[in-house]
Amino acid sequence: MEDKILIIGIAGGTGSGKSTLTQRIVQQFGNAVTVIRHDDYYKAHDDLTYEERTKLNYDHPNAFDTELLMRHLQELRAGKAIHCPIYDYSVHNRSTDWQLIYPSSVIIVEGILIFEDRRLCEQMDIKIFVDTDADIRILRRIRRDVQERARSLDSVITQYLETVKPMHEQFVEPSKKNADIIVPEGGHNSVAMEMIVNRIEKHIYNH
Amino acid sequence: MEDKILIIGIAGGTGSGKSTLTQRIVQQFGNAVTVIRHDDYYKAHDDLTYEERTKLNYDHPNAFDTELLMRHLQELRAGKAIHCPIYDYSVHNRSTDWQLIYPSSVIIVEGILIFEDRRLCEQMDIKIFVDTDADIRILRRIRRDVQERARSLDSVITQYLETVKPMHEQFVEPSKKNADIIVPEGGHNSVAMEMIVNRIEKHIYNH
Repeated sequence: MEDKILIIGIAGGTGSGKSTLTQRIVQQFGNAVTVIRHDDYYKAHDDLTYEERTKLNYDHPNAFDTELLMRHLQELRAGKAIHCPIYDYSVHNRSTDWQLIYPSSVIIVEGILIFEDRRLCEQMDIKIFVDTDADIRILRRIRRDVQERARSLDSVITQYLETVKPMHEQFVEPSKKNADIIVPEGGHNSVAMEMIVNRIEKHIYNH
Repeated sequence: MEDKILIIGIAGGTGSGKSTLTQRIVQQFGNAVTVIRHDDYYKAHDDLTYEERTKLNYDHPNAFDTELLMRHLQELRAGKAIHCPIYDYSVHNRSTDWQLIYPSSVIIVEGILIFEDRRLCEQMDIKIFVDTDADIRILRRIRRDVQERARSLDSVITQYLETVKPMHEQFVEPSKKNADIIVPEGGHNSVAMEMIVNRIEKHIYNH
């Protein structure tokens, strides 16, 4: 029973290409794969004002309700459905809405800090770290935040230097040690992609 | 025809665990896999005395006859047998003997510097870099050279600091960028091992 679900962690710094890798796996296997994002487990902060919430450090492990994520993974493995929280970026708080997730053959857990917590690591069958140079990652973040999300270049740079980069060096980079495989340049690495696909196929067809 | 052979490169610094990974793949697939070691392609130096040959830098890319290795891989892919050289460490020179190798379903090319040469990289279908901390690697090298090969601790340390480490930093470490996947701690990483095995199985059963 317990082996029926394959839980794959996909981690990596901001702009590393982990979402692209995840998307490509989903394209390949459709609804046999469910994606759970650590970001949706940002802690609820109804106790704080909007202004206070915008000042929180969202790149620190303490920003996440990792206990809840761990409990949810255990429940999925036990064959139970979960109510996955949804994070609402427009108000910087947990939404009152949630998403009902039934156990699927493969669960992907995605996030920058999912390999930072040893107990969370133990719940994952395969831990993939997407490793991309810091200059490429910040360029992607700038493109995304400035061009797609209409943020000012200054605010992106300030946030990167004051929070994203120090948290990356303190927590994300060291957590790479907990990975089972490291994939240079995530979603566009077709050789690594094929290995991951083969592994998932083997799981899906054998269960 | 060309896809019939899967060429896998396994690189990593001294003591990284690349040989352990290679051995475990061979245990799994037997003679469907053939291993070719870059070390066997050390250049012949009949022009030098034994004394002079011991002083060569064996951790530099120029120490290898990589042209010959590339020609051999092309020949194997074309379905031809090759005469693989054998390096004789007791005389620090190429042996007059050679090994006849027929094309097999999977060829593993193993060596510290095989990802350093772009053209050699292009001949490999899967490039795996085994990544292990430098302190762990030197401890393994000391254990091997001092305990198993009866070399003095001083000579191992001197060689490491004067040649092995600088060459690693100049050539081996940067070549990691050319890898398709990076495996922390080679042969004892069972999750990575299973992915590699799945990939090879898929190749063998489909050809």
